[in-house]
Amino acid sequence: MPRLYDFLPSGNGYKVRLLLTQLGRAFERIELDILKGETRTPAFLEKNPNGRIPLLELDNGEFLAESDAILFYLADGTAFLPSDRFDRARVLQWMFFEQYSHEPNIATVRFWMHSEMTDERRAMLDGKRKLGYAALEVMEQHLRGRTFFVGERYSIADIALYAYTHVADEGGFDLSGFPIIRCWLERVREQPRHIPITQG
Amino acid sequence: MPRLYDFLPSGNGYKVRLLLTQLGRAFERIELDILKGETRTPAFLEKNPNGRIPLLELDNGEFLAESDAILFYLADGTAFLPSDRFDRARVLQWMFFEQYSHEPNIATVRFWMHSEMTDERRAMLDGKRKLGYAALEVMEQHLRGRTFFVGERYSIADIALYAYTHVADEGGFDLSGFPIIRCWLERVREQPRHIPITQG
Repeated sequence: MPRLYDFLPSGNGYKVRLLLTQLGRAFERIELDILKGETRTPAFLEKNPNGRIPLLELDNGEFLAESDAILFYLADGTAFLPSDRFDRARVLQWMFFEQYSHEPNIATVRFWMHSEMTDERRAMLDGKRKLGYAALEVMEQHLRGRTFFVGERYSIADIALYAYTHVADEGGFDLSGFPIIRCWLERVREQPRHIPITQG
Repeated sequence: MPRLYDFLPSGNGYKVRLLLTQLGRAFERIELDILKGETRTPAFLEKNPNGRIPLLELDNGEFLAESDAILFYLADGTAFLPSDRFDRARVLQWMFFEQYSHEPNIATVRFWMHSEMTDERRAMLDGKRKLGYAALEVMEQHLRGRTFFVGERYSIADIALYAYTHVADEGGFDLSGFPIIRCWLERVREQPRHIPITQG
């Protein structure tokens, strides 16, 4: 049974939990408190030298890091990842967008508000806010006339972007000006075997 | 013939130029000066709403954004991307590491030093420097005893990480304490049909 090193409030961890659950795959979840430095211990750094969750441990003892790489691995050959070569690249395009333009702004501000808002962080808040709203604008525009991000089917691109968008308000992002995103969030929530981020 | 919207000093653009050249594929290159806002014009935003290069335009008129998604698409079915499912996920792991932990620190500081070092940017410099060196540490450790990042073969994981590592000094990063990375940079440079970042 695969083992998932995880942290319940993490959207990156949630992506993997959600997909494993929707795939109907049993897994063991190991909770690590990143606020207490539990992903920076020598024992964990041996598993993932980058010191981050989520981390997937396979039955053969191999480790795989980076939430969206884990999603791709688990979804490969299932209905959650298209088989067409170009559509797969499109899914990756949205996952790289998520990790570069969305997560570092929307997720990071949420994390700061959950942990500690230092002066240094406060100084970066306006910049992050602006870039976070710009990412939401790109999503709103893309989803106009579409039901899901790629190929009109629910895929790991939707899972990756849902994770931190649906809790963007916890970082002070107001989604009331993004009606198309809000309808899409609802469609994602209606998918079979959906679980909330609070469920381990 | 595919069309690549590009900016010569960009490491993200260079990744795609380098792979296309190593694949022996002809392409048309359209240079856009990001410093003059040429990727934020209405005409370009219609092609890529996220307003960034590189952007690949296929013969059928479809567009693909995000450098590492473009690499994956172009390398699929070639020697530059392993066929094994787990090895492919490992390649993606390193490409997501590159976009999340490496590029926003090492490439961003280089870009600031090439364009404008404002007070706001200067305030973030120490943080970026620390995270950039941490990413280099992770690479140095992983490459110990290995020739390339995944499966002992040159792949798009190496191309993605080479792009900004080999010009890290232009952002003030000193690679003298990373001898294993420096040997790997040399191995990448020795690959057939290698081109420098200055070549369009």
